[in-house]
Amino acid sequence: MTAPFRIGLLGHGTVGAAFAQLLEARAGQVEAVTGLRPELTGVLTRSRGDFEEILAGSDLIVEVIGGLEPARDYVLRSMAAGKHVVTANKQLLSQHGEELWACAREHDVQLRFEAAVAGVVPVIRVLQESLAAAHVDRLHGIVNGTTNFILTRMAETGASYDDALAEAQRLGYAEADPTDDVNGRDAAAKMAILARLAFNTPVHLDQVLYEGIEHLTADDMEYARDLGLGLKLIGTAERVDGGLSVRVHPAFLYAEHPLASVSGPFNAVTIESQAITEITLSGPGAGGPQTASAVLGDVISAMIPPASTPPATDRLEIVTDVESAFYLHLEVADRPGVLAQVAQLLGLQGASIRSVVQKGLGENARLVMVTHPILESKFYAAVELIGALDFMRSRPRPIRVIDEEFV
Amino acid sequence: MTAPFRIGLLGHGTVGAAFAQLLEARAGQVEAVTGLRPELTGVLTRSRGDFEEILAGSDLIVEVIGGLEPARDYVLRSMAAGKHVVTANKQLLSQHGEELWACAREHDVQLRFEAAVAGVVPVIRVLQESLAAAHVDRLHGIVNGTTNFILTRMAETGASYDDALAEAQRLGYAEADPTDDVNGRDAAAKMAILARLAFNTPVHLDQVLYEGIEHLTADDMEYARDLGLGLKLIGTAERVDGGLSVRVHPAFLYAEHPLASVSGPFNAVTIESQAITEITLSGPGAGGPQTASAVLGDVISAMIPPASTPPATDRLEIVTDVESAFYLHLEVADRPGVLAQVAQLLGLQGASIRSVVQKGLGENARLVMVTHPILESKFYAAVELIGALDFMRSRPRPIRVIDEEFV
Repeated sequence: MTAPFRIGLLGHGTVGAAFAQLLEARAGQVEAVTGLRPELTGVLTRSRGDFEEILAGSDLIVEVIGGLEPARDYVLRSMAAGKHVVTANKQLLSQHGEELWACAREHDVQLRFEAAVAGVVPVIRVLQESLAAAHVDRLHGIVNGTTNFILTRMAETGASYDDALAEAQRLGYAEADPTDDVNGRDAAAKMAILARLAFNTPVHLDQVLYEGIEHLTADDMEYARDLGLGLKLIGTAERVDGGLSVRVHPAFLYAEHPLASVSGPFNAVTIESQAITEITLSGPGAGGPQTASAVLGDVISAMIPPASTPPATDRLEIVTDVESAFYLHLEVADRPGVLAQVAQLLGLQGASIRSVVQKGLGENARLVMVTHPILESKFYAAVELIGALDFMRSRPRPIRVIDEEFV
Repeated sequence: MTAPFRIGLLGHGTVGAAFAQLLEARAGQVEAVTGLRPELTGVLTRSRGDFEEILAGSDLIVEVIGGLEPARDYVLRSMAAGKHVVTANKQLLSQHGEELWACAREHDVQLRFEAAVAGVVPVIRVLQESLAAAHVDRLHGIVNGTTNFILTRMAETGASYDDALAEAQRLGYAEADPTDDVNGRDAAAKMAILARLAFNTPVHLDQVLYEGIEHLTADDMEYARDLGLGLKLIGTAERVDGGLSVRVHPAFLYAEHPLASVSGPFNAVTIESQAITEITLSGPGAGGPQTASAVLGDVISAMIPPASTPPATDRLEIVTDVESAFYLHLEVADRPGVLAQVAQLLGLQGASIRSVVQKGLGENARLVMVTHPILESKFYAAVELIGALDFMRSRPRPIRVIDEEFV
């Protein structure tokens, strides 16, 4: 029997509840990876649980209460007691980060906070580990999902700011009081944390300039389109004349910029450095299960610090015939009945056609179609039969189509 | 004086030489982060150096020789001697991975290999650490920069496959013998490694189905555009009916897919899981300095496994006035001389106009311009003066434009 690893949970809101659920669902896999059996030993909420008791019974504390106090007090006392801490608290880190990190060093415990910035997008880990010794020149981020959702809706539908905000509230992407999201302060707190890690310089929330999106209009969006630009709430941290500028404001981006295509409630961060050129990380910036997944990744890292590749725990069968949608390009003699014969052969194998384009080319024609997903072996069987038809002028050209839904 | 950490380097080609250079340039920062002073204690090339001697004098071995032997032998012997190993060798890991990982576990050393897949894009770390206990459903990757460059050029310029390949060779994005890149085998090796980590199942290169890009034509690209699709060489690993499919083939992607906008020699990976929805990581997939940067990130992690936030080593001044390009939206009376007056006020502050659009609206007009970068304080000074002009019909609306070059 493996040893237990005891986790105390402070806070049981959206993220806390999702974490408790995810931990239970993934406990077996966590044990396989770490060799320790994770156990939730106590939960502190406003109405139940005792902090001292939970602390005494835990190896690690997860703090998802949010806000400055009592979160700060709990985190400091946990580390002073020699416990690792995983937190999702951006307010706390952007205003008391140096105090907390010094406390972690003093007591030789880990303080991990991937979930504090951009949810499950692993930007904290990448800055602290992959790029620990990189000389970062600039970092741009879309780090607030609420505003990115609002701006995406304004751009897509021509909606006004007020209407897009109301929609975001209806869909749960904006809170009843969205002030700190739409005025840029939430993004500023996250940029303070990212700038601290990327540039090894203390950065306090109060040092971040920020401007929100409340004054943007449908007109601005229309001109953005005319000029080939996207309009986003962008956080920037960059070296300027030997100093550091950290700021958040709406900005237009040219279409080629990696952040220009980040839409809906997604977050993304671009890190630029001479040695690495630039890397971009993107994904869902919020949501209970996503944030909980970032917290769990941190918990596992604290359980077994060095990266290791455990023995393969699964023995999945390797499958060679899968379903795919296809593009099929045919050069055919331009005569009646050709499309019907092709469609019949495809139909006999169960392939259904999603779209088709036919172009005449004198005596010949070009027939290009896209199918719905079908088992590859069946599709290729149909293509072989089609290739043998007497009106074919060259070999059929099938290419797969990745046909998946995205946000 | 801090203790030394001795690194032995096997191989001194493009990546090896870039690593030696980067290590020297970043030694001070590595020491600040880890508390240990990195030292290159020996280099093994075909013509000089002795493996046994280097091994005896090292705490960690960096293997960038490539190929199966003697790399496999060196890596196994290094780990058996209790040394950590960092490697960039995708052939080795995709064909002898289980043997190597078992050896690392047996001797309780770290085997790190971020640089083996997608260069500096931190996909290995994210799969092994952030997502260690995640239930991954599917992974898509553009993991070969040569083919992505060729396909991007074919799409952008209408070039044939042969012409785009010749251009890639001229620019150093394709080797003189590009066989393993263009036939999909290089991408297949990388997908074997990613699938092993994402699905905890042994995957050998021989189990990955692959198809290359040699048969694609400019025609396919044209239809792709007509149909609103992008055409990429895509690696896929996904659960299918309780088994696992791992494959590489050209595929069309709808424009909304996160991989559709990955262009030129860049690499990117999308990881899908119910708990996290989906995250995407992208960046340069190859290049000496970039790959060396991935190797250095691994070396640092092996030097000091747990993530820590060291004391802030820099004290950069926080700068509040920076340069930016601007969009400026003005509602003005439609009369002669308006644009001239606006341009003069901007010019006096040093702002130069990049583009301007004017639309008449009966008695009024709307003037929208984009400037070249200018110090924000100067631009806002001009805007204040412009706002006071008698022909202004509403407050000027300035919004920043992020105006940077991207690949």
